[in-house]
Amino acid sequence: MSIATTMIIRLEIRKSIASFGDVASRIAEVGGDIVAIDVIRAGKDVTTRDITVNVPDAANGEIVGVLSDMPGIKVINVSDRTFLAHLGGKIEVTPKMPIKNREDLSQVYTPGVARVSMAIHEDPNKAYSLTMKRNTVAVVTDGTAVLGLGDIGPEAAMPVMEGKAMLFKQLANIDAFPLCLNTKDPDEIVKIVKAVAPGFGGINLEDISSPRCFDIERRLEEELDIPVFHDDQHGTAVVALAGLLNALKVVDKDIGTARIVVVGIGAAGVSICNLLLAAGARNIYAVDREGILSAKIQYSNAEWNRLAQRTNTEGITGGLPEAIRGADVFIGVAGAGILTVDLLKSMAEDNIVFAMANPTPEIEPDLAEPHVRVLATGRSDYPNQINNVLCFPGIFRGALDCRARAVNLDMKLAAAKAIASVVQPDELNEHYIIPSIFNDKVVEYVRSAVIKAAIATDTARRIPPDFSAETKEE
Amino acid sequence: MSIATTMIIRLEIRKSIASFGDVASRIAEVGGDIVAIDVIRAGKDVTTRDITVNVPDAANGEIVGVLSDMPGIKVINVSDRTFLAHLGGKIEVTPKMPIKNREDLSQVYTPGVARVSMAIHEDPNKAYSLTMKRNTVAVVTDGTAVLGLGDIGPEAAMPVMEGKAMLFKQLANIDAFPLCLNTKDPDEIVKIVKAVAPGFGGINLEDISSPRCFDIERRLEEELDIPVFHDDQHGTAVVALAGLLNALKVVDKDIGTARIVVVGIGAAGVSICNLLLAAGARNIYAVDREGILSAKIQYSNAEWNRLAQRTNTEGITGGLPEAIRGADVFIGVAGAGILTVDLLKSMAEDNIVFAMANPTPEIEPDLAEPHVRVLATGRSDYPNQINNVLCFPGIFRGALDCRARAVNLDMKLAAAKAIASVVQPDELNEHYIIPSIFNDKVVEYVRSAVIKAAIATDTARRIPPDFSAETKEE
Repeated sequence: MSIATTMIIRLEIRKSIASFGDVASRIAEVGGDIVAIDVIRAGKDVTTRDITVNVPDAANGEIVGVLSDMPGIKVINVSDRTFLAHLGGKIEVTPKMPIKNREDLSQVYTPGVARVSMAIHEDPNKAYSLTMKRNTVAVVTDGTAVLGLGDIGPEAAMPVMEGKAMLFKQLANIDAFPLCLNTKDPDEIVKIVKAVAPGFGGINLEDISSPRCFDIERRLEEELDIPVFHDDQHGTAVVALAGLLNALKVVDKDIGTARIVVVGIGAAGVSICNLLLAAGARNIYAVDREGILSAKIQYSNAEWNRLAQRTNTEGITGGLPEAIRGADVFIGVAGAGILTVDLLKSMAEDNIVFAMANPTPEIEPDLAEPHVRVLATGRSDYPNQINNVLCFPGIFRGALDCRARAVNLDMKLAAAKAIASVVQPDELNEHYIIPSIFNDKVVEYVRSAVIKAAIATDTARRIPPDFSAETKEE
Repeated sequence: MSIATTMIIRLEIRKSIASFGDVASRIAEVGGDIVAIDVIRAGKDVTTRDITVNVPDAANGEIVGVLSDMPGIKVINVSDRTFLAHLGGKIEVTPKMPIKNREDLSQVYTPGVARVSMAIHEDPNKAYSLTMKRNTVAVVTDGTAVLGLGDIGPEAAMPVMEGKAMLFKQLANIDAFPLCLNTKDPDEIVKIVKAVAPGFGGINLEDISSPRCFDIERRLEEELDIPVFHDDQHGTAVVALAGLLNALKVVDKDIGTARIVVVGIGAAGVSICNLLLAAGARNIYAVDREGILSAKIQYSNAEWNRLAQRTNTEGITGGLPEAIRGADVFIGVAGAGILTVDLLKSMAEDNIVFAMANPTPEIEPDLAEPHVRVLATGRSDYPNQINNVLCFPGIFRGALDCRARAVNLDMKLAAAKAIASVVQPDELNEHYIIPSIFNDKVVEYVRSAVIKAAIATDTARRIPPDFSAETKEE
C-alpha cells in the first residue's frame, strides 16, 4: 500500500509571466516530489509540460489548486494513478510464438494455414483444437447497467470489460475479449452474439440492464451450443449462495427451513432466488418496489411471475417490514439505505445479513454490525466480501475445459459449494465465510466442481484428461 | 530452415498383437526419430499413445503407411508441425500489468474503474486515451473468400485471421482481434461491425467475397468514423502499385503513358485499377470473363460500370489477347494458367508482368521468365513477391496514430510510394523491385507517409508528437 499518489499534471507555462522554476518551488512547498518532466510543446511564448509528481495523500487535492492560482500557469489536465493505469488500455493481443522467418510465416499464415483451414472446413469441431476458440470468451455488454453507474454507453463500459478480461487471464488463463455493443435492441444483441460465436468458446454477458438481460440470455442459450453466462445474474448468485451456505453453518441453521428475504428482484435477485430454490431453500420472500412478490398478482416482468409461483408460500402481503419480521436471512441486491436498525431488530436470532448493493450497501456495516450475527457486503473494506471475481474465472475454466454446451443450474450450484468449501471447517467463523479472491484454490475448486456437474448432467462434450484415464478425446 | 518434419502420430496399440517396441523399431527403420511419447489412454487390451517423431522430409508420407500396415496398430490421427503450431490457437489476450494485490485490483477494476468509465461517459473521445481502442483493430470476415479456398465458413477462417493478428502485433504492435461472422448477409455484417466499433480504432475487412465486399466497405466507411480497410482490395492494390512504380523505373517507362492490362476485376482488381488511376495511369484495360470492360456495356456489377467509364479510353473490344497486344504491363489477379507464352510475346518490349493469382500464378514463373523483363508473383519462392503483409501493418499503424477518420485514396497512394521507396535506387533491379516483409523499414516508412497524407487531406484527428513540436493534443 502506498501512502502517496502519483499524478501527472499537464501545465501551460507562459514564459513572460512564470518559469518552470517557480512551478517546481510551489510543488515542493506543498510537499510534492517531481519525478519526471516531459515537454509536450515548446512554443515561443507558451510551453506545455507533463509533470509527474508524487504527492502525499494529504496534499492530493491541494496541489492542483495551488498551481492553478499561479499567474502565467494554466492546468490543462490532471491524471492520477488510476487513470495512468488505464492509458492506452489494459489488455493486449499477443502472438503465442514469434514469426522469426519465412518458414514460421508459412506455417502460421499463407500458404501453410490453408491446410489447417481446410481441416476445420471438413470438420468444424476441429476449431476447438486448431484455433483459439477453446480458450476464448467474449465479454459482451451494451453498457446499459455498468457497475452502479447505469446506462453509460459502450465506450464508457470498456474499462470495466478490459478489467474483467485481465482477471479472466490472470486467474484462469482464459483469453477474454471485450465486445461493447453500440445497440440496446435485444434482437440485435442476440443476432450479433450469435454471429460472432464461431470464434469463441463461451459468452460472458455483462452489465446488461434488467429485464432485457433475461430474454437475451435465454435466447442465446437456446440458439448457441456454447456456454452463455450473464455474470451480473449468476456470478452474484453463485457467490452469495457460497457465502450463505457457510453462514448457515456458522449459525447452525438449515437452508430448507430458514426464512430468507431477497430484496431487489433485478438481474441478480432473480438468479439468487432461483439458485436458492435449487439449493433447497423453501421459505423465500422476494421483495421489490411493488412489495413482496405474490402469485396472486400478475406482473409485466415474466421473471417475477415465475418467481412468485415458487416463493412466498404463505402468501403474505406487504413490503420489506412484513417480509423481514422473524427472517433468518436478508439478502440485499437493491439500493443504499433501504435496511434500518429497527428492521434488523425484527429479524430472528442469529440473523444473517448480506447487504450487497454497490457501491453503498443497504445499511452501513458499522450501523448493522451490533444487530447481526453474520454480515457480508460487496465491499472490500469489510470482512466477507461477496465478489463475482470468486465465480466467473473458475466457472468458465471448467466449462471451457469440458466443452460444456451451457452453464446449467447444477453447475452453478456446484460452483457455489466449491467456493464455500475453500473455507475449511476449522477456519469458518462469522468474519470468514467466503475466501479471498486471491486465494488460488478458488479457481481450481470451482473448475473441478463445474466439470463434474457438467459430466453428470451430460452437458460436457469432452472429458478433460485429468478427470479420467479412460477419456474420450476429439 | 529444417530439413525434417515433426509429426505427432496418435496410435492405438492392441497389446495382444503388437508392442510399443515393434512400433519403435519400424519407425527407426524408415529413418524416424522418436522424441516424445504421451500415453493418452491405457486400457486393458488397447493403449493409445501420441508419438512425436522427427521424420526426414523424404519419409514424410511413408511413415504413416508403414505404421498403418502393422498388425495390431491403428493410426488414429497425424499432426505435422503446421498443425502443431495451431494447437489451441495462435494468439492470446494478456493483461498489460499484473494484478498483484487489492490495491491494483481497485485501480483496474471496481471501485476505481468507475471514475475512468465516468470520464469516458462525459467525453467519449477519452476512449482513445483510456481504453485499448486507440491500438486495436477488428479483423472481420464472413469466411466467404478465404485465401484461394473460397467460401469455407467462419470457423475455418479463424486460423487465417489469427495469423493476421500475429502479424499486426509483431510488425506494427497493433492489437488485432479476429471476428469471424456466422452470417453472409451484407446488411447484418454492416450492423454487426457498426455495433462492435466502439471498442476498436479500426476495422480490417478480410476475405469477404466480391462484389458484396464493395457495398459492405462503402457503407461502413460512410457510417463509421474509424478507418475501414478491406485488405484483399486495397492491401493488394497498394503493394502491386509499389512494385509497379519500381518496375517502371527499372524499364524507364512512365505510368502516365504505359499501357496497362489488369485481369480479374474482383475485389483486388477493382482497387488496383482505382489506385493506378489515382497514381496517374491513363491507359488501363480491365479484363474479366466477359472481356475488356467497356463503357458501351451495362454490367450488373456497379464497380465494373464505374471502372468502364474510366478505362479502355480507346473503346477496344475483345478479351485478353486484344488487350495485351502491345501492352507494357500485365497485372493478373485472376486465375492459374490464363497467361500463355504467345500472349507474352505479343506485349511491348521491356514488359512487366505481375502474375499474382494464389496459390498458382497466371503463368508458371519458369515459363514466363525468358519472355518478361520484370516478373513479380504472389509467391515467396520467386523474386519480387507482392505480399499484403507489406501494407496492412504500416497503413493501420499510421491511421491509428493520427486517429484517421478513414483510409482514403491519398493515404493508399502514399503507402504504395513509401513501400517502393524502401528499395534504394542503387539496389533497384529486375529481381528486386519490392522489399522483404521482414525489412523493418517498411512499417516505419508506410506509417510516416500515411500520417502525412492523412494530415494533408484533413483526415487526421490527431498530430502524433513526432510529426510536430506544435502539436494539437487531446
